[in-house]
Amino acid sequence: MSWLPTLITDTPEEGYAVAIKLSRMAVKMTQPDDAIRAKLRPIYGEDATNLIQSSQVVATNFNTVAMANNFWRD
Amino acid sequence: MSWLPTLITDTPEEGYAVAIKLSRMAVKMTQPDDAIRAKLRPIYGEDATNLIQSSQVVATNFNTVAMANNFWRD
Amino acid sequence: MSWLPTLITDTPEEGYAVAIKLSRMAVKMTQPDDAIRAKLRPIYGEDATNLIQSSQVVATNFNTVAMANNFWRD
Amino acid sequence: MSWLPTLITDTPEEGYAVAIKLSRMAVKMTQPDDAIRAKLRPIYGEDATNLIQSSQVVATNFNTVAMANNFWRD
Amino acid sequence: MSWLPTLITDTPEEGYAVAIKLSRMAVKMTQPDDAIRAKLRPIYGEDATNLIQSSQVVATNFNTVAMANNFWRD
Amino acid sequence: MSWLPTLITDTPEEGYAVAIKLSRMAVKMTQPDDAIRAKLRPIYGEDATNLIQSSQVVATNFNTVAMANNFWRD
Repeated sequence: MSWLPTLITDTPEEGYAVAIKLSRMAVKMTQPDDAIRAKLRPIYGEDATNLIQSSQVVATNFNTVAMANNFWRD
Repeated sequence: MSWLPTLITDTPEEGYAVAIKLSRMAVKMTQPDDAIRAKLRPIYGEDATNLIQSSQVVATNFNTVAMANNFWRD
Repeated sequence: MSWLPTLITDTPEEGYAVAIKLSRMAVKMTQPDDAIRAKLRPIYGEDATNLIQSSQVVATNFNTVAMANNFWRD
Repeated sequence: MSWLPTLITDTPEEGYAVAIKLSRMAVKMTQPDDAIRAKLRPIYGEDATNLIQSSQVVATNFNTVAMANNFWRD
Repeated sequence: MSWLPTLITDTPEEGYAVAIKLSRMAVKMTQPDDAIRAKLRPIYGEDATNLIQSSQVVATNFNTVAMANNFWRD
Repeated sequence: MSWLPTLITDTPEEGYAVAIKLSRMAVKMTQPDDAIRAKLRPIYGEDATNLIQSSQVVATNFNTVAMANNFWRD
């Protein structure tokens, strides 16, 4: 099964979860080694700059997902 | 109840508040430990670069919320 | 009265002023202490990187405001 | 044959792969020397900041590809 | 006379010039002191990171100007 | 002749080349001295962070060019 079957969700909150998944998948594809990513997690998780940059990635992806869902207006 | 029931707001100012909430939620989901986030707050709050980067995240999210609300034109 | 009653302006120049206001408000909401922000101002005001990053935030917000105003085409 | 014959894909997952390809191609065009890029790979692959920045590039390109495909709504 | 009477231009090249102007104006409004900006110019002008970041700001503003002009398609 | 006569291209690959050109031109306009830019090239060409940032600029410009061409859908 695809890790990304669709961008369409029922609610904004579910769409936000898709944005988080999109953000993490790019990291995983750039660094496929689970052990290295696990080692980095506590580093960026306690670094203010890294946390803000992560939020920026999510914001960009959420823009895409929100547009896909016509902003859940209907 | 959902933390993000809708992107639709009555006014631009309320939409800006949603953009702030979206920006903070990504940080919270990346670093769920309240104690660590509390420790980081005074660091980025007194760092010019971090404050500007935070404003960038809010700007990206506000773009999404403003589009969702058809820019509160009507 | 709201600090952001509308995104609609008569001219591009006025729209740019709204973009500046949006950019500063996120900093203010992240660091509400006036004294700390005043202390940071000379730092980022003389730092080339910070000035360019500030311009990036304004550019993102101006995109939103310009779309809201249908680019002042009419 | 072109390295980028089309932005149109059948699925979101395939679209994401195009976004990854777009992100890498710019690096390749800026630094065409394979040996230098190979030397840099372990550096950014173990650097939290670089990995997050890479994810930001993919997010921007995925936005383009998703729009091109009308978000795979149909 | 306004420094930004319109976003509409006859050609893409003129639109790019408007994007450059928009990018510089935010720096000027954040640091209005001409002497300080003059002092910073040789710094960011010889710094690879600052030059790339400047290009990012122009890209964001050019997106806005290009949309305003319907991409000079007509 | 203009360095940017049009954003319209026949193929996505040609559009990507325009995005590269747009990205480089902003650097050239900020630092017009050919000798200084030549000196910087090997620096950012071997710096992982600078290469990723360059790819971000191209991604933003490619978004503009792709929209201009209606994503080469037709």
